[in-house]
Amino acid sequence: MKSKKIDNGYIIRLETGEEIITSMKKFCNENRIASAKISGIGAVSKIEIGLFQSNTRKYISNIIEKDLELLSLQGNATVVDDESYIHLHIITSDINNTCFGGHLNYAFVSVTAEIFLEVFEQKIKRFKDIELGINLLKL
Amino acid sequence: MKSKKIDNGYIIRLETGEEIITSMKKFCNENRIASAKISGIGAVSKIEIGLFQSNTRKYISNIIEKDLELLSLQGNATVVDDESYIHLHIITSDINNTCFGGHLNYAFVSVTAEIFLEVFEQKIKRFKDIELGINLLKL
Amino acid sequence: MKSKKIDNGYIIRLETGEEIITSMKKFCNENRIASAKISGIGAVSKIEIGLFQSNTRKYISNIIEKDLELLSLQGNATVVDDESYIHLHIITSDINNTCFGGHLNYAFVSVTAEIFLEVFEQKIKRFKDIELGINLLKL
Repeated sequence: MKSKKIDNGYIIRLETGEEIITSMKKFCNENRIASAKISGIGAVSKIEIGLFQSNTRKYISNIIEKDLELLSLQGNATVVDDESYIHLHIITSDINNTCFGGHLNYAFVSVTAEIFLEVFEQKIKRFKDIELGINLLKL
Repeated sequence: MKSKKIDNGYIIRLETGEEIITSMKKFCNENRIASAKISGIGAVSKIEIGLFQSNTRKYISNIIEKDLELLSLQGNATVVDDESYIHLHIITSDINNTCFGGHLNYAFVSVTAEIFLEVFEQKIKRFKDIELGINLLKL
Repeated sequence: MKSKKIDNGYIIRLETGEEIITSMKKFCNENRIASAKISGIGAVSKIEIGLFQSNTRKYISNIIEKDLELLSLQGNATVVDDESYIHLHIITSDINNTCFGGHLNYAFVSVTAEIFLEVFEQKIKRFKDIELGINLLKL
């Protein structure tokens, strides 16, 4: 991972084999970034992505392992239990330009990933919504 | 809807059953936000999305109603006739990670939506392009 | 192409027939914008999009020519050999709301494109990675 401080945050380059969620969490923890907007593009080789199923209240996830362009990474960094919490949704495409996407569990970078981390001063936390079973933004 | 002022705008959380376009328009009108960039992720249960057909100059729209991850919301808030005008494009995915997207007419939130509204000072209006039949940015 | 300076960059409208990569490169060169984040939506009529194939280390690209909504444009402007270098990934949808995406070679605008160029002061260059065969961010 390489990074450079820019006006309102950081521009980050992940390298082959680095995992996106883990890398972003580590970066935010180490740089004491409480809250940020995350976006980016690149290429990935293996991802686990899911859908929150409303009737079971569980994530149904699939692993895809092949050459994929990373077309859209969108989400945020917030704070849960004094640790950085990374919430990202991803869209990828294969050699036929077909798109696959979902809630991101993990994604291993192939070639490169170019990520913007736009930091804001206000610390945003999450709380566990008992009924929904997920962590919501505490606003 | 919950919101918090951050450095360059707002972070917003929509709740189960809230409609995205209506909610964003109401928020912008009430907070006198003339112009903003909008982006976000979440989950939705019912959407109407369309494509602008060039030969008929009409939007062809479809309704999709099932568990969908909201992978990408991109667009802007501008001003038409002194009212906030929300223009958003959306990408969603289903349980097979298949992606569906289009020009957003409406989307009902399931679980949550996490939206960044990045406000800028300059007021951007739209004008009706008679030939194209749509509202273009007046720049 | 029409543009307006906003707080942290520019809002840009491309018009029917304008090509996105060419237009953005010209705009960045003419306005001496070294580095920026790019995002946007709109509609396009003809695109060439690709995937970087890891075993051949070449881009495999396809041309799609039909009415397409431009759902997501994400990427950046940096500098290579004192010229603006535009790196964008795109996601589009057709009349069935099916999504197609990839690394963007070119895209011709139909109707309109609404693009945010968020400029930052730090000049980001790229370097040629000999092994990978592509231009990486120099951070």
